[in-house]
This record gives sequence, structure tokens and C-alpha cells, in this order.
Amino acid sequence: MRYNGMPSDFRLFSILAALVFFLLDFVFESWYHTTMTNFSYPKHVERWNVFECSCRGKEDGNPFTDYTIQGVFTSKNEETAVDGFYNGDGEYRVRFMPSFAESYRFEIHGSFSDTVYRGDFEATTANDNNHGPVRVANTFHFAYEDGAPYYPVGTTCYVWELQSDALQRQTLETLKNSPFNKIRFCIFPKHYDYNLKEPYSYPYIGKPMDNSVLTKENFLQYMCGMKGGVPPDNDWDFKRFNVQHFQHIEKRIEDLRDLGIEADLIVMHPYDRWGFSMMDAECDDLYWNYVIARFAAYRNVWWALANEYDLMPQKTIRDWERYAAILREKDPYKHLRSIHNCRPFYDHSRPWITHCSIQRQDIYKCAELVDEYREQYKKPIVLDEIAYEGNIQHGWGNISGRELVRRFWEAALRGGYASHGETFTHPDDLLWWSHGGELRGESPARLAFLRRVLSETPGSGLAPTQGSWDETTATVEQTTGDSGYYLFYYGFMRPSFRDFYFDEENEYHVEIIDTWNMTIEDRGYCKGKFRVKLPGKEYMAIRIRRRENG
Amino acid sequence: MRYNGMPSDFRLFSILAALVFFLLDFVFESWYHTTMTNFSYPKHVERWNVFECSCRGKEDGNPFTDYTIQGVFTSKNEETAVDGFYNGDGEYRVRFMPSFAESYRFEIHGSFSDTVYRGDFEATTANDNNHGPVRVANTFHFAYEDGAPYYPVGTTCYVWELQSDALQRQTLETLKNSPFNKIRFCIFPKHYDYNLKEPYSYPYIGKPMDNSVLTKENFLQYMCGMKGGVPPDNDWDFKRFNVQHFQHIEKRIEDLRDLGIEADLIVMHPYDRWGFSMMDAECDDLYWNYVIARFAAYRNVWWALANEYDLMPQKTIRDWERYAAILREKDPYKHLRSIHNCRPFYDHSRPWITHCSIQRQDIYKCAELVDEYREQYKKPIVLDEIAYEGNIQHGWGNISGRELVRRFWEAALRGGYASHGETFTHPDDLLWWSHGGELRGESPARLAFLRRVLSETPGSGLAPTQGSWDETTATVEQTTGDSGYYLFYYGFMRPSFRDFYFDEENEYHVEIIDTWNMTIEDRGYCKGKFRVKLPGKEYMAIRIRRRENG
Repeated sequence: MRYNGMPSDFRLFSILAALVFFLLDFVFESWYHTTMTNFSYPKHVERWNVFECSCRGKEDGNPFTDYTIQGVFTSKNEETAVDGFYNGDGEYRVRFMPSFAESYRFEIHGSFSDTVYRGDFEATTANDNNHGPVRVANTFHFAYEDGAPYYPVGTTCYVWELQSDALQRQTLETLKNSPFNKIRFCIFPKHYDYNLKEPYSYPYIGKPMDNSVLTKENFLQYMCGMKGGVPPDNDWDFKRFNVQHFQHIEKRIEDLRDLGIEADLIVMHPYDRWGFSMMDAECDDLYWNYVIARFAAYRNVWWALANEYDLMPQKTIRDWERYAAILREKDPYKHLRSIHNCRPFYDHSRPWITHCSIQRQDIYKCAELVDEYREQYKKPIVLDEIAYEGNIQHGWGNISGRELVRRFWEAALRGGYASHGETFTHPDDLLWWSHGGELRGESPARLAFLRRVLSETPGSGLAPTQGSWDETTATVEQTTGDSGYYLFYYGFMRPSFRDFYFDEENEYHVEIIDTWNMTIEDRGYCKGKFRVKLPGKEYMAIRIRRRENG
Repeated sequence: MRYNGMPSDFRLFSILAALVFFLLDFVFESWYHTTMTNFSYPKHVERWNVFECSCRGKEDGNPFTDYTIQGVFTSKNEETAVDGFYNGDGEYRVRFMPSFAESYRFEIHGSFSDTVYRGDFEATTANDNNHGPVRVANTFHFAYEDGAPYYPVGTTCYVWELQSDALQRQTLETLKNSPFNKIRFCIFPKHYDYNLKEPYSYPYIGKPMDNSVLTKENFLQYMCGMKGGVPPDNDWDFKRFNVQHFQHIEKRIEDLRDLGIEADLIVMHPYDRWGFSMMDAECDDLYWNYVIARFAAYRNVWWALANEYDLMPQKTIRDWERYAAILREKDPYKHLRSIHNCRPFYDHSRPWITHCSIQRQDIYKCAELVDEYREQYKKPIVLDEIAYEGNIQHGWGNISGRELVRRFWEAALRGGYASHGETFTHPDDLLWWSHGGELRGESPARLAFLRRVLSETPGSGLAPTQGSWDETTATVEQTTGDSGYYLFYYGFMRPSFRDFYFDEENEYHVEIIDTWNMTIEDRGYCKGKFRVKLPGKEYMAIRIRRRENG
């Protein structure tokens, strides 16, 4: 093509200019790719929320094992190093939870990239629903990092997040309207009675065994730990994570966080037909490091090293202690740590265990032992399994709502906490305990009521006191003095009255609590020796508070 | 007055004849007084009933302490020596229970009289309602002496026999229509909460303290053992029994016998404001000897050395062992012997203890320990106190009928027995547990149902077997072989089904027992692997019996 009337030197200039722009563009693109697309992060993040930066890095070989990535975050009050992780498609991420509302700068380095990335951001004040991570408080109790009390009323839905999208949405909706502020669930999928279908996703790249061979009767034959091996047609690469699995769980942790619910993550468990419980030490450690790098920055995470650790003969105490050591080294936020038993307790006196996550060892007595456990371990006692409300064939899953609520009250007044679960038979075998979904039991409403009563205690929690042999008696946990607050619980006993005497001088406000019918009856003020009449029914409590002068 | 026509020698004859008759009459009277009025006894008595002979004897001094009386009874199969006792008004009695239906002769001697009395009688065949005394059978169970099984379903009315005549009659009428075949009650009157009035009679001659000083609040101050002494205005002669008291109790033992109810006599107890629990060893021994001499011949007597022996600090183990030695020496019929605790058990392995009469040591677990107690003591386990159905203020007296019945079933399937009691508040403070009267609870009807189920076991009792961890399982107590009889109890658990497999060959008859609603549903015969559907309710049991071929 030929342009008439254009001077040939202008044409040359144009070509040169185009070349220059092309070169400039190339340079800019190159710079942009390095500093913007290859490295992105927000400039503001709320205190105790997740700060996350994304970096492009090496993709060759196996990025999950071949390269390192670490971030170091520095502010006036802290200097924290965290591991990043490979997120697939050449992307690496580093997450960090700022513990202070102040300016942070950071540096990302490691073998994943030849570049060292630096940046800064502002951690802003936490909003009203953000109290930080939950910590042990007052030896036996919990509080958020900002000091707000936290009274755990937990539930268990082992793999609710690995069900259909619809069911997950339903679970979140149910949780939103429930009293539960802690939920126990697994990172690995679950193979167990009522749980024989394929999960939403798998944690590794590979192929699961054919589940059409499974029945309710033969499922135990495929339980790796019990059987002593992995069914052979499983085909997994335990060194390549399925990042979608973890990304999905992160979404669910966020959803829970937004509902004010702690995610008590069960990192390992025995209910496995795929071999995730049978990996070697190298792969276990890779998994632990990956889990910590991905999840630790979420403020609502708790670490449950295992569910029923003692049903995993393939793991030794040395293994559990090694995982705990990784946690202590790699989780800079010191999230709560526990390990849950089937029969024998793990040694809860180990220093890395922040609280006792207990399954009852006796059919008839569980919550009644909380005060003994307190004495023994000097840590918060959380009874995470004391049988579930339901009607399935298994003895751990068929007590009444009344009995479950009684156990909660016993645990509470003895200075500990219990957890809920629900196991009603369902036409599609959807049980809250494992799948989430809807709650059908009678206990949740009563547990909301208990949570209300707990929230009305003046301190961070209840402590058992010496009452009569035939009552459970609590006061406020404190090291000195008399709080003037007393709770008396009668469980399955049905006294028609009780007599009280504290002193001659003070007035005491008396309330009758019907823990089942969820009523609190005001009986006004009493003084000296006084008698409190009761309806002679089960599940009654009395709350007495001293009137403070002045 | 003058008689005409009568010869004077005839008149003389008449006078002489009258004199002779008068003398003969005197001699006969004298002989009759010695051999008939002074010594009387029946010529026939039913086997295992009370043979009793009455002798006049010395009245001077203190006949309770100054004289001895003993009977020796001889038949083809036995020669038995028994003590007699002073019955007041110059009368002594000797009682004897013939253990065989055969001819007996006997001799009564002792310092009570200068004469030795002899006689004979015929022990006749027992009638259909008379099975003899209850014995230990098959190590852990009971049977009557004639071999008929005895499944104790006991109750407790501590001093029912020391209430008004009307109330005693009402108690007997209630018992007649109840499932109870054993009742625990005291020989001494009782001083305790709800029991502050004067009893029907006292065991000694003397005068009680003024009871107008007593209140529900201060009664413990008058409890001799706790207070360390006897209120001073009591005035008793511990060496002179009030025979009416004992005669009255005998009538009540007979009434119970006629209703087929064992009289579990509590010989000593701590609930005392009169000093009967504080006597010296000499008076204690006198009492024990008197009690044995009077009551041992009643076939339905059991000896409970004490209720809550450990609340009697004034008595030592040496004392209890001495009483036991008296019992072993003086009760030739070897009635059942036990000693009941408040907190620590007496050493139930002592050879004189025939069965463990247990008060629960834990609020939450009691019947659940029966199988452990069996292992430990190798004796029948009778849980005589596991809290009563009721609504009084005390924790031992305010559980529900449901919970009490559950404890009975737990005890039964673990190879032991439980006892009932009822403590509902009452406008006149009349509580079954102490006074008898009417039953108002929900448990008795269910205990009748349990007794029916027990009566349908093929052997002398149930033995626990190893079932699943979450069920209580029983079979027939036997040393060899498989009875083909199985009971499964689920208590507060609510399974919707359970799976069974015994063998491939036999057919098994399946019944669903609703222990609360008292129904037995026939599910026909099953074979091989089979599933039993259940309603997912509390308090269900399954009874399975193998069809015997041929």
C-alpha cells in the first residue's frame, strides 16, 4: 500500500516512534508483570483478619516440595515469620494475621523466586464482631484476644464442608440460627458408617478407590488403619495437593468466622479408606506444613491434631509429638491445640496441649468428672464427645436431648464445657454429626439458653465449689475472695425445696432456672436462713447473687 | 337347812366323798398346772412354720437376765438347740422352725424352772405358699429352701410397723397389691427427718425424752451417735425388754410371711435419740440374743446387722463381728445375713455375710457396678439403697420413677438386684420409705413387670455377658454351656435398630420389651444375621430365646 503526500522522513520517524513505544511497552509490561501481576497485596487489612499476598513463582518440578517461600512481617509490636504455600498455576501465597492495629512492612523471599518482594500495609482497628483469636483465660476458661469472654458451646459436623453445595449452604444457615460458636470438622474426607459416598473434593491429586463395593456392613474392612493397609486401587500423589480442596475449606472457615464460629479443625483422623491416614512421615510433615501455611492466619482456627488418635495404630506418640512440634514452630499465632481420644486420653499434661478435648470414657459418667479433670490437668476441659442426641444404632449417638442438656449443665457447673452433636436416622443418611444440614433435636434451643446463662456470669467462667453431696454447685472462677454469685444444679434429682444460709448481713437475689423449659423465675431477695421452694421436677437450677451495697 | 329322810351315814359318806373329790381336784389341778397350763404346745405344725411351746417359770429377780432356757429338738434328720426367751408375766417361750416334715421330740430345760419339759409333735407338709426360708443359690442368686426361685424385688419402710394401727393395716394392704417380696425395716424406733414422733411402742421398759423440743432443723443435735451421747432425760432399763414391742413385731413378721414377703430386719441403726444405739456390750449382746430367740424361727426373717453401720462411730468392727458371732451361734436356721453401709462398705468378703446389701457410693453410677461387685465378692448383690422415687429435699430421695426403674433393670441384667423406696412430700409427713401407707410413685407397676420378666428366666437368675460396649447384656446364670436365653437392655440409649448374629443353624425367638410401658411385642423367629428394629425410645429391651429342637 502507498500513502500519497507523506514525506519519507516522517514515515521513518513514525516507524522509529512505533519501535520506541513498542520497546517502552515491553519494558513496562515486564516491570508490571514483576511488580503488579506477579506480586499483589492489599494496602489495608483489619486487625486479626487475613493479610494475603500473591506472588508468581517457579512452576517446574513439584512446586509443593521443591521450593520454599517465607514472609517476614514487621511492625512496632511484632516481627513474625510465616511460611507461604504453593497455590497452583504458578502462584504462591503468603498469609499473615496482624495482631496489632498498626503499620506493617514485609518481605517475601525463598527459592520459589529469584526476586525478593517487599511491601507495606496498614492493619486497621477490628470491627465490633472481631475480637481476635480465642485464648485460654484464667487457667480453665477461654477469652478472645481482646478480652471478650468466650464460652464454648460447640457442635460436631465432621465433614459438613465436603457435602453438596446446597447442603453446605443449609448447614451455614442452620449454624447462623444456632447457639453454636465452635464446630469440629475434618480436613480429610471421612470414611465411616453413614459416610460412604465420595466427598466434595480430595486433598491430593489422584484417583479414589471404587466406592460401589462398600456397604454399611463391610465398610470397616476398608478402614485403612484397622485393615493395616490402603485398598490397592487408590492412586494418590501425596506430594501434590489438590489446591481446590484447601481453597474450598478456606471459604468455609471464612464463612464460619463471619458467623462468629470457631473452626476446630481436625487435622488427622482414622476414618479413611484412601490412605490419607497411612502416609509416611515425610508426606505427613508436608501436609502439616501446608495446612499450617494455608489456615493459620484465620483467627477462628483451632487445631485438633486428631480425632480418636488412639484408633490410628499406624501413628506413634513420637509422630504426634512431631506434628505438635511443627505446629509450635510454624503457627506464630499459637492457636488452641488439642488431641481427642477414643478410649485412653492422650497425655493432656503435655505443654503443647492448650485444652483437654475429651471423649467420655464411661457410658454413665462423663460431665460429672470435669472437676476431677480440672484438678488433674489444670487446663480448660472441653468434653467434645459425650454421646449425641439421636436415635441411631450406635451407643455414642442415641441419647435424648434431655440427657445431653443435663450433661452440658453438669459440665458447665463443674467448670468445663461440653459439645453437641446430632445423629437422627434420615432417609438419605444425612446426619448432622457428619453432614450438617438441619437440626431436629430438642437440645439446641436449651443450649442457647445455657449459653445465655453463662454469658450472664460476672467472670470469665464458672468454677465448681463445695456444696452438698447431692448438688452441683458453681461460683465464679477467681483466685481470691467471694464473688457473691452461686449456681446450684440438681440434674435428675427433684428436690421440692432447698435451704440456704450465707450470712446474716447481705441480701441475696434468688432465681429459679428451669433448664429444660428455659425459664428464669425471679424470687426476689432473701436474707439469713432461707428456704427456696422448687417444683420437684428434674433439670432445675437455682441462681443466687449477692446484692452489692453502694 | 335340814334334809328329811336322809340317813346320817350317807351324809357322812357325802362329806367324805366331797373331801376326796376336793383332794383329787387339788392334785389334778396341781398336776394340770404343772403339765398343761405351765407347759403347752401344739401337736402339729407345718414344716417351716413356727413351733412354739410355752412354759411357766421363775419371775423373781430379772427373768430377762437371771435365768436360762433352751430347747433341743430332735427328728430323723436334725437335732437343733435353740434359746428360749422370757415373754413376761412368768411365761417363757421356746420357738423352733422344723426343717423337715417328720416327727419331732423335744426337751426344754434351763435355770428358769426346776422341771425339764418334754414333748413331741408332727411337722406336716408345707402348703403351696410355703417354700421355706430364702437361701443363696448359684453363688449370686437366691432360692427358697424347697428350690423355688426367689427374685428379690425389695422395698424399704424403716418403721412401718411402729406407726398407728390404721397405717399399719394400710401398709399391709398396699404390700398385698405390690410387687415387693422383701421389706427392710427396723426393730428399734427411728429418729430422723420426717420421723420425729413417738413410735407405736418401745423395746425397753422406761421413759423416752420429751419430743416437743424437736424440730426438722434441730433433730440432728439429738442423734445419739453424732452428738456423742444420749439426751439425759431418757430413762430406760436396757435389761428389761418391753415384750409387747417384740410381740407386735412378730405379728407383723407373720403378716408379711402370709403375704409371701421376706422381713429384712434391721437389728441396729444410728437414727436414735433414746440411746438404743449407745448401749454397752453386755446390753447389746442381751438384745441380740433376745432378738434371735424371738424372731429366728420365722422363716421369712433376714438379718441386716445394721443400716448405715458406718454412721455408728460408737460401734467398732470388733462389735459387729461379735454380733455376727452371736448370730452364727444362736440362729440355727442360718438366715441370710448382711450389713448395710452409708459410705464405705463393710468388708463383704467376711464369711458370715451371705449377700452384699449395698448403698450406692456414687450419685451417678450404682446399678452399673453390680457386675464389678459380683467379681469382687462372689456373693449375691442387693442394692438396697440407690435413691428413692420421690421429691423430698434430700438427694437420696428424689429421683424419678423412670430413673429408679432403669437402675433396677441395670442391676438385674448385671446379675444383681435392686430395692425400691418412695419419698414424696406429704401433708402429714407420711413417707412410704419410713412410715409405709400408700404408694404414689410410677415405679411399682414397672417393678411388677420386671419381676414377671425375671420369673420367666429359665434358671435361678441372670448373669451379665459380654455384649457391645453400649448395651447391658444378660443370659442365664449357669456354669457350663449356652442357655440360648439372652436379654439386651438399652437404658437411656435409644437405638433404632440392632443387628444380631448367633449362628447359622438355630432359630431365635425375638421379643421387644418396653420396660416403661410394660409391653412385650412378639417379633417371631429369626435366623442367621438379623436386624431387630426398635422404636428409638429410652428404656427398651430385647429378649431372644433359642428355639429348642425336638
